[in-house]
Amino acid sequence: MSDSIEELIIKAADPSEDRERWLNTIQDEETIALLLESVPIEQRLDIWRDLDSERRLPVLLNLRHDPRETILDAMSLSELDALFDNSDAEALIELAETLPRRLVERALLRLDDEQRRYFEQAREYDENETGHWVSQKLLMLPASAKVRDGLRLLRREIPRLTQNIFLVNRIGSYLGAVPINSLVGQPDHLPLSELLDEECPTLSAEEDIVEASRKVQFCGYPALPVLEPSGKLVGRLDVVTANEVIEEEFESKLMASAGLDENEDLFAPIGKTIEGRSVWLGINLLTALLASWFIGLFEATLESVVALAVLMPVVASMGGIAGSQTLALIIRGLALGQVNETNARQLLHKEFKVGAWSGLIWAVVIAVVAYWWFDSMLIGAVIACAILINIVTASISGLFVPLALKRMNFDPALSGAVVLTTVTDIVGFVVFLGLGTLVLV
Amino acid sequence: MSDSIEELIIKAADPSEDRERWLNTIQDEETIALLLESVPIEQRLDIWRDLDSERRLPVLLNLRHDPRETILDAMSLSELDALFDNSDAEALIELAETLPRRLVERALLRLDDEQRRYFEQAREYDENETGHWVSQKLLMLPASAKVRDGLRLLRREIPRLTQNIFLVNRIGSYLGAVPINSLVGQPDHLPLSELLDEECPTLSAEEDIVEASRKVQFCGYPALPVLEPSGKLVGRLDVVTANEVIEEEFESKLMASAGLDENEDLFAPIGKTIEGRSVWLGINLLTALLASWFIGLFEATLESVVALAVLMPVVASMGGIAGSQTLALIIRGLALGQVNETNARQLLHKEFKVGAWSGLIWAVVIAVVAYWWFDSMLIGAVIACAILINIVTASISGLFVPLALKRMNFDPALSGAVVLTTVTDIVGFVVFLGLGTLVLV
Repeated sequence: MSDSIEELIIKAADPSEDRERWLNTIQDEETIALLLESVPIEQRLDIWRDLDSERRLPVLLNLRHDPRETILDAMSLSELDALFDNSDAEALIELAETLPRRLVERALLRLDDEQRRYFEQAREYDENETGHWVSQKLLMLPASAKVRDGLRLLRREIPRLTQNIFLVNRIGSYLGAVPINSLVGQPDHLPLSELLDEECPTLSAEEDIVEASRKVQFCGYPALPVLEPSGKLVGRLDVVTANEVIEEEFESKLMASAGLDENEDLFAPIGKTIEGRSVWLGINLLTALLASWFIGLFEATLESVVALAVLMPVVASMGGIAGSQTLALIIRGLALGQVNETNARQLLHKEFKVGAWSGLIWAVVIAVVAYWWFDSMLIGAVIACAILINIVTASISGLFVPLALKRMNFDPALSGAVVLTTVTDIVGFVVFLGLGTLVLV
Repeated sequence: MSDSIEELIIKAADPSEDRERWLNTIQDEETIALLLESVPIEQRLDIWRDLDSERRLPVLLNLRHDPRETILDAMSLSELDALFDNSDAEALIELAETLPRRLVERALLRLDDEQRRYFEQAREYDENETGHWVSQKLLMLPASAKVRDGLRLLRREIPRLTQNIFLVNRIGSYLGAVPINSLVGQPDHLPLSELLDEECPTLSAEEDIVEASRKVQFCGYPALPVLEPSGKLVGRLDVVTANEVIEEEFESKLMASAGLDENEDLFAPIGKTIEGRSVWLGINLLTALLASWFIGLFEATLESVVALAVLMPVVASMGGIAGSQTLALIIRGLALGQVNETNARQLLHKEFKVGAWSGLIWAVVIAVVAYWWFDSMLIGAVIACAILINIVTASISGLFVPLALKRMNFDPALSGAVVLTTVTDIVGFVVFLGLGTLVLV
């Protein structure tokens, strides 16, 4: 798949190619979306204009938010109207995340009553709730339905990933799921309620969409019913939607480590990019200046023993790496619910031991290097102590920084590394230069 | 879900609890596996011993490799034999990743002929090939089968996530998939081959398991057939297995940034932990010493202008952050196939502009701070130039480092950050101290 996108990018850059023709040869809209994200904005809009109008909506739905916005911004009102005419409630719920409110209202006018009701229902739930993302493409029958009714339903085209027929009572309350294959060989007049799959789990519309998606991913059913607290069936969450949610969640974790979000556009406008990235750079500047301020306390020492200035990055970075290893382990543990205040003491015990032993080993190695380099036993001794103390501090901080951040309701995956590096930098510099002042000056 | 694991960890630590009783109240084996991973090894083995023997295999299959190994290592041969007696080929393929070869052979003797053939077939493929991970729990009928045969098959219990019956010819070659619901209302004698779903995709047994899993995740079918190059049906890959593969892949990427792998045990033995983490610390030491060596070239400058030593971390870390932001974007782009040598020039153009503007902005900010702090226009000017040059270099390196690593067949997600930080540290120190030498000494 990745090869073909590469080829497409090459073709897109080649003016001699007949773009409209080869765009039509691309079968799936996900690939076109990937292509659009992979080219500069001007070229992106050129390709967009050559795209068949009926393919525009699915391509748009496959784009990440930021690139999607670059396209929506460039569309005229009449083009948007054409788009909305092809749209159903489900598509509009997805688009509403990037559309200005005014345009959402405009699009709503073009939906029929049923679709508008569906859209309004989704809007009753927050974007992080399952109810916002359910699909109403499902098989549903009244509680009194018989096998014959079920078979009649199956003769029509059925939605993707459908394994069950859901039974509801007169007020729409969910009664249970009947597996399609269980209808085979049953008498026509048998009530479907006698064929219920007692094990099929249900989801709550108010539950967090990421948790609900994880349940769908591993439940062994291609889709699960979603219920209101009252028991009313509001729709279902299928495994493709769940996988999209989890993929986005994962991307956001990867990008968070650099202070970016998952919707970042490869070819975002320069101004927007600079603005987006400046928050993280600003925070970093403050922590770096804080570290510098601590170094500044030891100006006199640095002046008299310049070797300390030369070796500073070694102390700080060994602490940073040791801490980030514990941090990665703890952040995963927190995400899985495996780390909490009960076993924190046991983890502290283990991480302290690991830090102490590994600190000792690296202290010796680095002391030998420093001795050999600066021909001074004392410098070797000072850096050895500093490395040992900083690696132990780092291992312990790698455990407590994310726990503390979580307690204060910050996301440890986003801010853990910055806080931790600040701690290890400052501890490293202060211990190293402080010891140097005591011993060497 | 995470709440309940927290409660379980608390219970597990409480000696007054009747462990055997409450272990039996935990319904699913995934939760028990998470619990085992969350407690120190001694306690882990205690809980394991209290676990009903028929739950041991599924729990073991849900564990990550490293924690699983701590348990397998502690089991006696007779306990292992009891485990193998409950095992089928699919379980053994999964266990074989952590079992010593000798024990795998022992387990094989306890499988029946069919299961052993199935195991041998999986072993013909590498662990990164789809053929290694296929399941043979599927519905299959000969090419000549009629609707009546299909309905007879559906009356029995069917495997999870089954939406299709696969048709094969006499030598086992795959002919196509028949949707279960399409059988409804068809005459008994109609050949199934007339009900084929022409759109159902197939996977190749030799294709990469991660790529195949992504296809399964988003194809809209709960499972896809897997074929040998000859066209023979070797099994199927269902969406739960695919999700497990992708989840492991995610985890390994997240952990790779700290030089760890996804099987790292929260409570690994101390010696093993130190050994595992030392590679990354060692690599870091080398790069830090390299940076120190460059700083050492400017000893005389540092001695006469100690402010430079104080401000060094600011220059290096601003470059590091700017570079890591571009890096995160490019690594994702490479993973999605969106970045390659065709659009590298356009990306260079964009990242250079972003780097230049954002470098300018931060250069001014930092120059003002440095001027105010050290009361020296020259120091302000030196650090401004150094910041500008380092942020531009960082933005460009954030693009080229991962491209170069990929070309040399290294994983940019694993080694990108180390290489990049080395570049930005060295460029930062050399430019800053070099300019300082020219202007200030």
